[in-house]
Amino acid sequence: MEQPRRPYDIDRLTDVALAVFAQRGFDGASMDDVARAAGITKAAIYHHVSGKEELLERGLRRALEALFAMLDESGASEGRPVERLRYIVRRVAELAIEVLPELTVLVRVRGNSETERNAIERRRAFDAIVAGIVRAAQEAGEFDPALDAAIVVRLIFGMCNSIVEWYRPHGRYTSSDIADAVVRIVFEGPQLGP
Amino acid sequence: MEQPRRPYDIDRLTDVALAVFAQRGFDGASMDDVARAAGITKAAIYHHVSGKEELLERGLRRALEALFAMLDESGASEGRPVERLRYIVRRVAELAIEVLPELTVLVRVRGNSETERNAIERRRAFDAIVAGIVRAAQEAGEFDPALDAAIVVRLIFGMCNSIVEWYRPHGRYTSSDIADAVVRIVFEGPQLGP
Repeated sequence: MEQPRRPYDIDRLTDVALAVFAQRGFDGASMDDVARAAGITKAAIYHHVSGKEELLERGLRRALEALFAMLDESGASEGRPVERLRYIVRRVAELAIEVLPELTVLVRVRGNSETERNAIERRRAFDAIVAGIVRAAQEAGEFDPALDAAIVVRLIFGMCNSIVEWYRPHGRYTSSDIADAVVRIVFEGPQLGP
Repeated sequence: MEQPRRPYDIDRLTDVALAVFAQRGFDGASMDDVARAAGITKAAIYHHVSGKEELLERGLRRALEALFAMLDESGASEGRPVERLRYIVRRVAELAIEVLPELTVLVRVRGNSETERNAIERRRAFDAIVAGIVRAAQEAGEFDPALDAAIVVRLIFGMCNSIVEWYRPHGRYTSSDIADAVVRIVFEGPQLGP
């Protein structure tokens, strides 16, 4: 059944553009592709936005806002450091799915423009906050002190970020299946026995 | 100190092209960029290769050959399934660094051409072999049976693949530091205490 058509506004155009960027890559996607996907003319798009860069900027902002907003949730901000860390890792895995097009575009930025470099800088700030929590967990004797906190954060988020590359909505796995697997692998140590 | 100049051959051109693709993305890189990086004319490049696609194909082949060759090493092919798995995970993390430009290009392919789709198919075959080892480890009671083997493989290799995005040669961390961290996180369960 076809969705009733909302008139285009900047948010809906951003939705369409993100899907196009996620599929073709930002560099590989043109405003013609966005117009085609939206079913409107390029002129009509330029009525709403200044160009591809602005659509990217809006998509990246959504992704970063979702990540930072999560850090304010009580599970991420209260309790023992290792419990906060588990909560954050689970939520980052869930967000990879819940905010899939936005996170897809975020994890693929390479710093080719001012917009991309700003996003990388904010993402690094996010990672640095989480690395601080890893260090707090290590100081509390709750997390392997032999691991470098910065490497831990990069590797764990590398695992979470990879979800955007293979997760398919309405496929076999739910967001919760995948988040459970991430937490089990990272925190439980799935190897059994000697 | 400048390296003595080898005359260009197809392998050296592939090296240069891979570095350009890793930096600018395959879609964002042109043969002009490759020629500039090689310090020769585009005409001279076309003397050696048919085009950008052939350079990509050669790079992807190197990456896949490195991965499959590793599966024949005794650590990957002999012993208890869980020990083979640990060995493979460590080696994939090391290969991300040892064969950095090749693996960078491989982990970023999106299936935009026949060459990319072939590479994705071979990479999937590699993942399927490793998923078989995860299942064997589960059947032997050596690995958490609650985890889906296909998800485990995707997540662990997602972690390994992410190394290409942040590892910098001659930086703070060696290939062995990073491979150790991957194995500790994935197999040991870094959370301590209750």
